[in-house]
Amino acid sequence: MTEAVHHPLCELCQQDGGLLVVKTEKLRVVRVDDSDYPGFYRVIWNDHVAEFTDLATADHVPCLGAVAIVETLVRQHLKPTKVNLASLGNVVPHLHWHVIARFADDKHFPQPIWGQAQRDVDASRWSELRDKLPALDQAIKEALLASVMQRA
Amino acid sequence: MTEAVHHPLCELCQQDGGLLVVKTEKLRVVRVDDSDYPGFYRVIWNDHVAEFTDLATADHVPCLGAVAIVETLVRQHLKPTKVNLASLGNVVPHLHWHVIARFADDKHFPQPIWGQAQRDVDASRWSELRDKLPALDQAIKEALLASVMQRA
Repeated sequence: MTEAVHHPLCELCQQDGGLLVVKTEKLRVVRVDDSDYPGFYRVIWNDHVAEFTDLATADHVPCLGAVAIVETLVRQHLKPTKVNLASLGNVVPHLHWHVIARFADDKHFPQPIWGQAQRDVDASRWSELRDKLPALDQAIKEALLASVMQRA
Repeated sequence: MTEAVHHPLCELCQQDGGLLVVKTEKLRVVRVDDSDYPGFYRVIWNDHVAEFTDLATADHVPCLGAVAIVETLVRQHLKPTKVNLASLGNVVPHLHWHVIARFADDKHFPQPIWGQAQRDVDASRWSELRDKLPALDQAIKEALLASVMQRA
């Protein structure tokens, strides 16, 4: 095990970056509290690296495996129209993957959530999906821990 | 080898989706002709699948491996401030990864390229980088073909 590398001025080194769902030695999954997007998770690498290709090649699979676990379970639980995946990090250059459930009637669809809003959506649209989030969080936690055990 | 799956109405099944850099059995890399973004590539899965997790698990590594090859070479050749990776597909739900070299003085930085423009940038800003693109395309082609040979 190598020493963890953290940056004193990086907010993803200092904070979880959302509601913590599960944390492993290498990474964590958080859920983003966004009133427009009920199924919005981030997979955040624990060490302070900026780019996906700053990871050791051996870490590509656990990193993207976690993204795939979140995407799979988001699809099963929330049945989104589409899932959006993105690693941007222009503002916070600490490797984090956005995993965002998109719905045809959400605020920005079919634009990316960073684009021009397409419509106003009443928060009640998401209440049924929000009710599913505790079970989804739990499923993500269990699947991610199981995947770590399997590789260990 | 399984039969290729294509959709008659999908533009990424009917067209390359950009300037073709290299095509393998499973995927292709194209360069996007965008006057604001000189280092903008897409890794496009050849078969018509919508989501990353629609791929067989065995295909996750070649798919993300191609994204990593493009990112690595874009970083080496263009020295961007940041690389942005994204699989969105809300408009064209056929798996494709955007790999975008971002620069602190580009049109949208630090916003995603789908966000609000931050400034006007003269096309001459990118002329030196554009001169590097033929060599970058060639390096991507060689590295991707080598990675396929290595796995075969």
